[in-house]
Amino acid sequence: MEDYFAGIEPIRYEGPDSRNPLSYRYYDADRIVAGKRMADHFRFAVAYWHTFRGTGVDPFGQQTLVRPWDDPVDSVDNALRRMRVAFDFIARLGVDYYCFHDRDIAPEGASLAESNRNLDQVVDLAEKLQADTGIRLLWGTANLFANPRYMNGAATNPDAHVFAYAAAQVKKAMEVTHRLGGANYVFWGGREGYATLLNTDMKREQDHLARFLHMADDYARAIGFDGTLLIEPKPKEPTTHQYDFDAATVLAFLRGYGLDRFKLNVECNHATLAGHTFAHELQTASDAGLLGSIDANTGDELIGWDTDQFNLDPAVTSRVMMIVLRQGGIAPGGFNFDAKLRRESTDIRDMFAAHVGSIDAFARGLLVADRIIADGTLDQWRRERYASYDAGKGAEIESGAAGFRDLEQWVLDAGEPRTNSGRQEQFENLVASFW
Amino acid sequence: MEDYFAGIEPIRYEGPDSRNPLSYRYYDADRIVAGKRMADHFRFAVAYWHTFRGTGVDPFGQQTLVRPWDDPVDSVDNALRRMRVAFDFIARLGVDYYCFHDRDIAPEGASLAESNRNLDQVVDLAEKLQADTGIRLLWGTANLFANPRYMNGAATNPDAHVFAYAAAQVKKAMEVTHRLGGANYVFWGGREGYATLLNTDMKREQDHLARFLHMADDYARAIGFDGTLLIEPKPKEPTTHQYDFDAATVLAFLRGYGLDRFKLNVECNHATLAGHTFAHELQTASDAGLLGSIDANTGDELIGWDTDQFNLDPAVTSRVMMIVLRQGGIAPGGFNFDAKLRRESTDIRDMFAAHVGSIDAFARGLLVADRIIADGTLDQWRRERYASYDAGKGAEIESGAAGFRDLEQWVLDAGEPRTNSGRQEQFENLVASFW
Amino acid sequence: MEDYFAGIEPIRYEGPDSRNPLSYRYYDADRIVAGKRMADHFRFAVAYWHTFRGTGVDPFGQQTLVRPWDDPVDSVDNALRRMRVAFDFIARLGVDYYCFHDRDIAPEGASLAESNRNLDQVVDLAEKLQADTGIRLLWGTANLFANPRYMNGAATNPDAHVFAYAAAQVKKAMEVTHRLGGANYVFWGGREGYATLLNTDMKREQDHLARFLHMADDYARAIGFDGTLLIEPKPKEPTTHQYDFDAATVLAFLRGYGLDRFKLNVECNHATLAGHTFAHELQTASDAGLLGSIDANTGDELIGWDTDQFNLDPAVTSRVMMIVLRQGGIAPGGFNFDAKLRRESTDIRDMFAAHVGSIDAFARGLLVADRIIADGTLDQWRRERYASYDAGKGAEIESGAAGFRDLEQWVLDAGEPRTNSGRQEQFENLVASFW
Amino acid sequence: MEDYFAGIEPIRYEGPDSRNPLSYRYYDADRIVAGKRMADHFRFAVAYWHTFRGTGVDPFGQQTLVRPWDDPVDSVDNALRRMRVAFDFIARLGVDYYCFHDRDIAPEGASLAESNRNLDQVVDLAEKLQADTGIRLLWGTANLFANPRYMNGAATNPDAHVFAYAAAQVKKAMEVTHRLGGANYVFWGGREGYATLLNTDMKREQDHLARFLHMADDYARAIGFDGTLLIEPKPKEPTTHQYDFDAATVLAFLRGYGLDRFKLNVECNHATLAGHTFAHELQTASDAGLLGSIDANTGDELIGWDTDQFNLDPAVTSRVMMIVLRQGGIAPGGFNFDAKLRRESTDIRDMFAAHVGSIDAFARGLLVADRIIADGTLDQWRRERYASYDAGKGAEIESGAAGFRDLEQWVLDAGEPRTNSGRQEQFENLVASFW
Repeated sequence: MEDYFAGIEPIRYEGPDSRNPLSYRYYDADRIVAGKRMADHFRFAVAYWHTFRGTGVDPFGQQTLVRPWDDPVDSVDNALRRMRVAFDFIARLGVDYYCFHDRDIAPEGASLAESNRNLDQVVDLAEKLQADTGIRLLWGTANLFANPRYMNGAATNPDAHVFAYAAAQVKKAMEVTHRLGGANYVFWGGREGYATLLNTDMKREQDHLARFLHMADDYARAIGFDGTLLIEPKPKEPTTHQYDFDAATVLAFLRGYGLDRFKLNVECNHATLAGHTFAHELQTASDAGLLGSIDANTGDELIGWDTDQFNLDPAVTSRVMMIVLRQGGIAPGGFNFDAKLRRESTDIRDMFAAHVGSIDAFARGLLVADRIIADGTLDQWRRERYASYDAGKGAEIESGAAGFRDLEQWVLDAGEPRTNSGRQEQFENLVASFW
Repeated sequence: MEDYFAGIEPIRYEGPDSRNPLSYRYYDADRIVAGKRMADHFRFAVAYWHTFRGTGVDPFGQQTLVRPWDDPVDSVDNALRRMRVAFDFIARLGVDYYCFHDRDIAPEGASLAESNRNLDQVVDLAEKLQADTGIRLLWGTANLFANPRYMNGAATNPDAHVFAYAAAQVKKAMEVTHRLGGANYVFWGGREGYATLLNTDMKREQDHLARFLHMADDYARAIGFDGTLLIEPKPKEPTTHQYDFDAATVLAFLRGYGLDRFKLNVECNHATLAGHTFAHELQTASDAGLLGSIDANTGDELIGWDTDQFNLDPAVTSRVMMIVLRQGGIAPGGFNFDAKLRRESTDIRDMFAAHVGSIDAFARGLLVADRIIADGTLDQWRRERYASYDAGKGAEIESGAAGFRDLEQWVLDAGEPRTNSGRQEQFENLVASFW
Repeated sequence: MEDYFAGIEPIRYEGPDSRNPLSYRYYDADRIVAGKRMADHFRFAVAYWHTFRGTGVDPFGQQTLVRPWDDPVDSVDNALRRMRVAFDFIARLGVDYYCFHDRDIAPEGASLAESNRNLDQVVDLAEKLQADTGIRLLWGTANLFANPRYMNGAATNPDAHVFAYAAAQVKKAMEVTHRLGGANYVFWGGREGYATLLNTDMKREQDHLARFLHMADDYARAIGFDGTLLIEPKPKEPTTHQYDFDAATVLAFLRGYGLDRFKLNVECNHATLAGHTFAHELQTASDAGLLGSIDANTGDELIGWDTDQFNLDPAVTSRVMMIVLRQGGIAPGGFNFDAKLRRESTDIRDMFAAHVGSIDAFARGLLVADRIIADGTLDQWRRERYASYDAGKGAEIESGAAGFRDLEQWVLDAGEPRTNSGRQEQFENLVASFW
Repeated sequence: MEDYFAGIEPIRYEGPDSRNPLSYRYYDADRIVAGKRMADHFRFAVAYWHTFRGTGVDPFGQQTLVRPWDDPVDSVDNALRRMRVAFDFIARLGVDYYCFHDRDIAPEGASLAESNRNLDQVVDLAEKLQADTGIRLLWGTANLFANPRYMNGAATNPDAHVFAYAAAQVKKAMEVTHRLGGANYVFWGGREGYATLLNTDMKREQDHLARFLHMADDYARAIGFDGTLLIEPKPKEPTTHQYDFDAATVLAFLRGYGLDRFKLNVECNHATLAGHTFAHELQTASDAGLLGSIDANTGDELIGWDTDQFNLDPAVTSRVMMIVLRQGGIAPGGFNFDAKLRRESTDIRDMFAAHVGSIDAFARGLLVADRIIADGTLDQWRRERYASYDAGKGAEIESGAAGFRDLEQWVLDAGEPRTNSGRQEQFENLVASFW
């Protein structure tokens, strides 16, 4: 195979003072932090779609990212060559995982049967390359949004024939994910939603979506796939209203339809589009015991769509890592770089630079989070705010022993409570002092 | 009592051609539409807080709305005089209901006991005025957000003493709502949320909120109050992150904590602040069987806070009324004008004009919605989109008889589905043709 | 030529009670309103790019709008066939104008010379079809954003070679616009802006943009093109920060660089993305004497990108028409439907329905605006608010005769001013009463 | 005077490793950076309104910040006592400047004359305290937004009497600013805008605003005040549409009305509310030679109003300082902390903590910016992007020597330009490597 990355050395840890832009200044895979290798905290994955199928097309412009390993025809041969390049890239980057949609790795054929055959050929190679390199599959998924057949929805399509097509496609994607040892399987419902309520029976569509997910769960069991099934929330895009708007909306859905096996794959840019911080969405999922995996990117809060940028902000990454550390880690999930190069970043070197910058930002965030937790002040300050519930009437409130009459009597006896400063700026300064 | 509204005649229906700005052009209370009096479709309520306690204060400016019946001291006497004026206003407007917070109608005292006594005095008068005028209480609620004691939350306050105070206050507010024959009781958690996650144990706070609501439910049963208990979702304001962000978030919460008795009071401006249309939030609640009552207002989508404007847009009101008609009505809930005069609208005439304009917009919306539903084309078009689920494989999907293997086989046999136009513009034109 | 629109009759005015969805209920081209034919008030134009080059591609999905007159290869033959279809469509719709980008109507060649030859061939046909049908060109423009060469800007590209390419392309586009009798020429700087300030010399780029526009002005004079030159403001999309953010930003630019000949082409969806109402942007341009033409569409204020929807809202269209009537009309500009079908609206019938609905909404808006202006109450109320400047000290303020010392003395003598109600709700009700 | 800050030592520089929360870890006033004392780079000012008049009131809640030096009556005595406390606070903080509105420092009287007398009494004391402490006035301004008389605007009020009142108030505020040696005078038009276009003659209002500013300029000259006159842009709040929307809008206004003496005071939170980054607004003003002073705060981009938070983000502060260093400094302007405590931060210690954290963040930003500029790589990379304009055809473009015909010929000869990567991620990584 041609060496498409000639001149780019495998990325290595060189420490904070390195001026080599293609080195890690913070990410040192084998370094033990909080009792675990850095690599095992993150389980970083390269997103096949952005990094190997991203073209730079936007709603106003044509392809800008033209790769020497791609030909204009979307052939199986090209898919095989691209897969080899991808494994080379991931290996040089020093990352352990990748993620894909079925249609990223193999071209769609003229029929479902042909699409499945295409997929099988590429998966044969992927299996071999995984064995050769040790690179593993973090999760697989099916693309149920790009093909025009899905324009009105996949599992929520008003046409049962499309529902069936989506089912067949997910069935196959779960099979190949299982075959490749995928640790998780993700559902992102890019067309599950509505463009206008006028033509939509929202209740019936959501019933169908729930049926679909129950079928998927049944099928996973049938084939012995015991990876986590993950729903990825996202609002507004591409569908005007997407059903899986945010973490809380998905919780309502899972609880309403008894979908007990599913967890969440939370993405930063989806969080902010829904009006929440990344930390909020992670904490919401984590509090419910359902934070399964993370799409590590960021958006531009002044821009109203998914810009899927590489996250470089240690203020954000340290908060993320505090949540992950507190819940005992993200495995069997991981951190998938659902992030894309800017369309003007046309050099191959940019592909490396973008990943290196964000890996380092997360590594730095882990180090900061570990220091904050080890220091203990932040957690102590927070616990102290709630101390009144640890005993006495507060504990009775928590246990359910007290009711409105008891509490009224307490207030009539004890009078007005004090107002306690929330000390937000002091909490923020404390955290900033660890950056 | 002085006639503060001298020169303003009771508002009457005069028909669409009337040029009298203080007449109804569409709202004709006794007219039968879709089998019911217009008045009974809406059960319109005046919001005591905006219309009688609104001062025009904003974060950059002082009081502009100075009413001749108010004195600068917040006395019980003033509260009694104001209550008489309010009933006079509501009667002239020709509306049947009002809504209040405890602290709107009676001044807070130096102690809980004194506050309760103040409230009792005003409720005595309200009871009498209700009997005299036939005006009824749509719902009551407790103000758990204005007093500094609640700055860090009421039921979610880190201090159990504040939780207890909130409990005592709601206990009393439920009692007076019950005494006044209130049809519903509303919970809006203005301070239930967090300013920063750094100092917050979100899970513990939400557990406390659920405990609080269970206690409220228990107490309502204990006193024999069988009105609907309503949660009012709102995002972002005043708390940076409010727990009851939107309808779906509240559904997740109610389902997660087994709070089966609660329904939702949905507000337009809260919907749009959460990134949803009013119709979306109403439909979400209605689909869950939990659309209990409506706060009839609107916001400015280019402005990032609750502007609580009177809704004048028949394009919106007709969609609202379609949802309400389809679910068989809003009773025992109603339409509460949670809307305020602009702070520059300082004339007493403006108080009437604002309500008249919005009542007429909703009345017009009802007439349009009734015509659309009676015509039947819209519903027929929508049903036809889903016809494939009414029989055959589609019906098997809905019944649970089909699984992934069956559906794959169908697709292998039947091939690619057709793409069917969603016809959004045709649906929209159809609806617009009824305005 | 094949009859691609078989079964669709030319759209005719049938009056408000018509239930024929492909008829005009309000738009009656020859009806005289405010002293002018309805058609002459609007000078409606079909946007070639959306209606004939729109494919339904979005950032997550492939082409959905597949037209029988198109072949997969972007050939000159196809361009010629498509042009004939377009004129047939416009004629059946009963609209007088169209607008295009150079690359919409003819395929880009392997070199500039070839691109120009392609363009000439199609323009030959367009000239003939214009003569045959009476349909005219409202404006032409050059597409300086889709080709990858422009990814870092056209006139603001850091590479002078790209600047030169853009200049050559605009030169040709102005020539063909002139040849086809175009009434205006539009500049929309889709890539004039920056993705990050870090790599950008904003001042130098804006200097280049101004140079470019001066060159364009010079060249227009050189070839005798005396149509209006129009800048179209837009924020955020596709470039993270676009230089022509909104009307006021463009005014600052034109004034700062002495670009006196340019006016503005204002679009609704661009206005709302910039945080303004459509009316605000139109009024800002009109007050400066620079409202040259209008892109008639709308967005979804809950969605953060240009959705370019057909505007159906008479509340908006009536405000637009009030501004246009007050400034004495929009000619030689017009109303261009810069609006696209939803990607799920795949039927050819949808193409007609979308335009018909919006033409009718604007026609209805004109009728409402005319009634409001003829009635005179609104204008009178507004004038009365400013009456204090018509004489006395107010007039001295306006004339410049009074200064701070005089005004202080007035206040020391006259005391506190009254607060006058802004009566917003009464103004709004008044306007609503004319819908 | 009572020692209200007992137990709080003057804040001192203790270096990055200090764990004392009330120490500076980066801000070392006398340290020389880029040839100047740190203190002289910033000229930090405490904002009197937030820090000494902030009450914690919000649209849903009452006062939470109750200070022991304040009494409930807004008396001159209280104003004098508060002024002493303020100077003590500023001195302990180690900051050199303060800023005020007229009504912050002295209570409004029953008449203009009484208000002016109140102001004079407090200014007498301020003059003395300035002399005693060396603390200086960065800028003064007049509050033309809080009093109900200004609800419909000050200089843009439809009533000339209100215009005159505003003129008288600014006249006095300029006099006291001059007397106290203020380095600048600021105009923030909080009520200059409209609530609805329906009742507004925008053109006439803007003419009045321009007249007002010309009068102010004349008066400043008349009294010999040669400080900078600064306009502070802000969109949306409190007025639905504010005329001074953003920096570019103000430039259009100044250029349109020939207001040559005015510069801009740019605020971060106002920038983001207008849809721009802080850096964008600063660069826009700086490129025009009009960046006069800075309001150092930040907002919450997920929240739609001015949250006026203390800026702790070194990613932002380093970009700010790069712009300031490149334009040769901010003097005679400075960095005013237009930032307020969260309303839950009720402890006096929070007042210090908030300022300390943000001062340190800016100091850290200065150190980073200085390192980036000293390193030179970033500037070099940026310059290289534009090298094609330094000679040849590019230089002819800049000089005006080339026109459309020349450039077309170049392209016909030279063919297609190359596409050059914008390398955004590499630029971003480079900057991040200096944090």
